[in-house]
Amino acid sequence: MSIEEVQLPRYEDVAAAARRLRGRAVRTPLLGTPSLDDKLGFRLRIKAETLQRTGSFKFRGAFNRISQIDRAQNPGGVVAYSSGNHGQGVAAAAALCGLPAVVVMPADSPQIKLRNTAGYGAEVVTFDRAKEDREVIAARIAHDRKAVIVPPYDDPAIIAGQGTAGLEVAEQAKAAELAIDHLVAPVSGGGLIAGIALAMEQLSRGTKLWTAEPAQFDDHARSLAAGRREQNAALSGSICDALMARSPGVLTFAINQPRLAGGLVVSDDEVRDAMAVAFDVLKLVIEPGGAVALAAVLTGKLDIAAGETVVVVASGGNVDRRSFAEALAAGGSL
Amino acid sequence: MSIEEVQLPRYEDVAAAARRLRGRAVRTPLLGTPSLDDKLGFRLRIKAETLQRTGSFKFRGAFNRISQIDRAQNPGGVVAYSSGNHGQGVAAAAALCGLPAVVVMPADSPQIKLRNTAGYGAEVVTFDRAKEDREVIAARIAHDRKAVIVPPYDDPAIIAGQGTAGLEVAEQAKAAELAIDHLVAPVSGGGLIAGIALAMEQLSRGTKLWTAEPAQFDDHARSLAAGRREQNAALSGSICDALMARSPGVLTFAINQPRLAGGLVVSDDEVRDAMAVAFDVLKLVIEPGGAVALAAVLTGKLDIAAGETVVVVASGGNVDRRSFAEALAAGGSL
Repeated sequence: MSIEEVQLPRYEDVAAAARRLRGRAVRTPLLGTPSLDDKLGFRLRIKAETLQRTGSFKFRGAFNRISQIDRAQNPGGVVAYSSGNHGQGVAAAAALCGLPAVVVMPADSPQIKLRNTAGYGAEVVTFDRAKEDREVIAARIAHDRKAVIVPPYDDPAIIAGQGTAGLEVAEQAKAAELAIDHLVAPVSGGGLIAGIALAMEQLSRGTKLWTAEPAQFDDHARSLAAGRREQNAALSGSICDALMARSPGVLTFAINQPRLAGGLVVSDDEVRDAMAVAFDVLKLVIEPGGAVALAAVLTGKLDIAAGETVVVVASGGNVDRRSFAEALAAGGSL
Repeated sequence: MSIEEVQLPRYEDVAAAARRLRGRAVRTPLLGTPSLDDKLGFRLRIKAETLQRTGSFKFRGAFNRISQIDRAQNPGGVVAYSSGNHGQGVAAAAALCGLPAVVVMPADSPQIKLRNTAGYGAEVVTFDRAKEDREVIAARIAHDRKAVIVPPYDDPAIIAGQGTAGLEVAEQAKAAELAIDHLVAPVSGGGLIAGIALAMEQLSRGTKLWTAEPAQFDDHARSLAAGRREQNAALSGSICDALMARSPGVLTFAINQPRLAGGLVVSDDEVRDAMAVAFDVLKLVIEPGGAVALAAVLTGKLDIAAGETVVVVASGGNVDRRSFAEALAAGGSL
């Protein structure tokens, strides 16, 4: 895919997505904890997409895309490839739209994600991450069944849908009379932050936008610094199973590159600390990949002036009980 | 204390408390999870007081009471006795009001609770639970220091403050165009449900109100059935450490007895299941005592018709990491 083939989404597409999602997606709260603010010396607000339908922001883009599908032309419904959260979002959105869904998932995905995807009504097809190409598998299924592939991030309707999280943040901050100085979001393919960037450019122009990634999967940080799409060498080796895309998307990077301030990188240990602090102080269940933005801010990766307001997106909460208990046991305190 | 000595609070007191709490307390979200609703066959909404300042609803009553204290007459500030959530609420509210606070706590309280209470700025005074009476100690400190005792529930301003949670529920349900058929709240002394009852009587008259308690600490269920205040025999023996009051309060029962539909009782195992389901599905950290209302609804203790709307209050989230991990390991799935 090249940029020329596809029209990049704009703010108007985000606003249209918000209208489609009304009453379907959860308007997730923007949470603050004054005692934490006192400790940090700045205002921290959490956009809790953990509380979104299917436990992550992914439902937003999936519903925005799937609700626009022509059923007559696509009797086979939808196909998605996903390590987890996108698959759940697609499964739930397809069920709401009355369309069948197939989700292609790595065989070593967290049990909770495999189980939930099936639970939302999708057919799950597993593959070996080391040996097979998920995009090829998905393309074959889509062809055989006359189904539409719903890509995880590099799609205008997906990006616009994810952007509704940013639109809500801007509205919620305005209602609370807060000017947002920084916003940090976890990134994998970059769809969430791209959609947010479109919303903030229109509604909160003074906000600096940052990506957060786990070490070894810092393709956005490197790409934003270099001005071109860089690849990760690693294919595995982080607890952040949701953030394993190899490089920024084509469309997402075209949106993000001129709009973002830069990329922040955290270690797995810092992620566990952030998960434990979220448990202790925020009372939120955040999955590893969903906690990287919080981790980046708590560990001082971002230069924040006293009294500034920082929004971090907690992008998902789909973590196994055992993994969560391990993070609580290993994580430090604030 | 007898009822005649004190004026019972009314709805107007709850509304006044809401004005005092504006910008101080968190307006906690009323959360819903459509996939859970589909499974249950009715609409379940969670009033997430776990996300309240200090991690429980207790901050509401404490701030409403303490913000009305005459400093000149009470240079010593406030004194509270509590092994947990009330103490933290009082400590944080007193700090916000610029008043000193003493919290009388058992010497064998969990380190985390002692540390948190001190962390909010209170002076912690410990006592030997086997040999000393905390109320006597608190009264002596209050006398010596010219300080006001802030009781945990049997106080008009405390009840009115807790009621702001109910006022918010009514407003949030109205905004979402939902009529609430049932509301269930965890109870210990009965202050939270009493305040909620005052709010709902005014704003949501058709809502049936229920208490939820752990087995052996079911004094409200028995008292409501008998029409008089009954006592628990047990002093310990439940994981619900926040719900250990021996009997309903005098004022709270005078409010609750004519207004509540009845009391629901759950086992510790059912509480662990509810905590685990809250983790899996709602992505919320709920402490044992905060999860009894959810447990009662999930286990069918309440007769709910298809399509009805039920609100449960998740009243607190202050649970240590180890206890939470144990609940996750032991808890069943939905």
